[in-house]
Amino acid sequence: MGRVVGSIEASQKDSSLVGRKLMIVQQVNSECDPIRYEEVAADTVGAGIGEFVLLVKGAGARKTNRDNPSERDVVDCSIVGIIDRFNK
Amino acid sequence: MGRVVGSIEASQKDSSLVGRKLMIVQQVNSECDPIRYEEVAADTVGAGIGEFVLLVKGAGARKTNRDNPSERDVVDCSIVGIIDRFNK
Amino acid sequence: MGRVVGSIEASQKDSSLVGRKLMIVQQVNSECDPIRYEEVAADTVGAGIGEFVLLVKGAGARKTNRDNPSERDVVDCSIVGIIDRFNK
Amino acid sequence: MGRVVGSIEASQKDSSLVGRKLMIVQQVNSECDPIRYEEVAADTVGAGIGEFVLLVKGAGARKTNRDNPSERDVVDCSIVGIIDRFNK
Amino acid sequence: MGRVVGSIEASQKDSSLVGRKLMIVQQVNSECDPIRYEEVAADTVGAGIGEFVLLVKGAGARKTNRDNPSERDVVDCSIVGIIDRFNK
Repeated sequence: MGRVVGSIEASQKDSSLVGRKLMIVQQVNSECDPIRYEEVAADTVGAGIGEFVLLVKGAGARKTNRDNPSERDVVDCSIVGIIDRFNK
Repeated sequence: MGRVVGSIEASQKDSSLVGRKLMIVQQVNSECDPIRYEEVAADTVGAGIGEFVLLVKGAGARKTNRDNPSERDVVDCSIVGIIDRFNK
Repeated sequence: MGRVVGSIEASQKDSSLVGRKLMIVQQVNSECDPIRYEEVAADTVGAGIGEFVLLVKGAGARKTNRDNPSERDVVDCSIVGIIDRFNK
Repeated sequence: MGRVVGSIEASQKDSSLVGRKLMIVQQVNSECDPIRYEEVAADTVGAGIGEFVLLVKGAGARKTNRDNPSERDVVDCSIVGIIDRFNK
Repeated sequence: MGRVVGSIEASQKDSSLVGRKLMIVQQVNSECDPIRYEEVAADTVGAGIGEFVLLVKGAGARKTNRDNPSERDVVDCSIVGIIDRFNK
């Protein structure tokens, strides 16, 4: 779980990152408190600044619904959901 | 090892997450004390709030007994067992 | 490196875990002091309680010498050796 | 996210590392403060000392635009972008 | 980055570990200070006690230059270089 706190710009980058929204995400717990550290995550669901999101890391981050899934991709962290509610 | 403490709702999410129970799990040690941090895990064994569960992370989390295992899946953490007993 | 401190029982679990010894392992350093946290690991070498063991995590944990290596497997941590000596 | 703080030299190394720039990168947060620990990362975008960079770890680090992607590669951390701006 | 501080002996182990030098490596930063924790790593470049080494973890650790790369291998951490110099 995380909260989008910003984005990064990088003109010099791997071609597989071109055209992708690279967001800065602060990991949070279900009380919305910041935990651990910030990650850069490729947004795949249109998440905006301040929204709570679902993050996946590793190979799962490269299995998001891209036009050409078999295409080369260096991403290791993706936003795959916008959290509406934490039920506890 | 973890303990189910809640669930999340996300209307805007990757299509591979549709229909999956996304639980909030607090990692615990074998004394049932909370350790490390909370994770969001896809439930695959019908775990309920308060139950102690077995978590797997990474590619193993995508190898659970799904109808169509070869289908695209972004999950990186799954609940794969409900712990009955900690033997020490 | 870890030390076997117990085992878990889970009647409700992924079918790939049936028949596997699921041990609770406390990670240790080479002075045998506990470090980091406990993991649940599938035993593949007959390790007993109190023994110091070699752990592997991630995909390596699914490459242990199983009867049918290509069979579906959710394990993400395995015991792959019993440590006789720490040479320092 | 990280900041390049140096490089390492290793004459005795795996052949897949020959000819690669192995940089020492201190992980940072979006305030440019050092967090966590240093990593050695293979540079793929011409990053220099002092520059803020985008790191990927795991299999993604081996998918960077190399001449022969199918060639054996042991790298587990790569620099895949030079950060121009942190937008917050 | 790490420093070799010892080795382990394990007579009872996965067959893919037979004949491999299993070294105890203390992770270090570029000031050669110990950080994080010790790992057991399969040596692939002839590293000796006291030497500073380059570690890779995960699948990269199984891609080192072995006689039969396609053979089953449980290793999740390998020494892939001996560091001659830290340039800062």
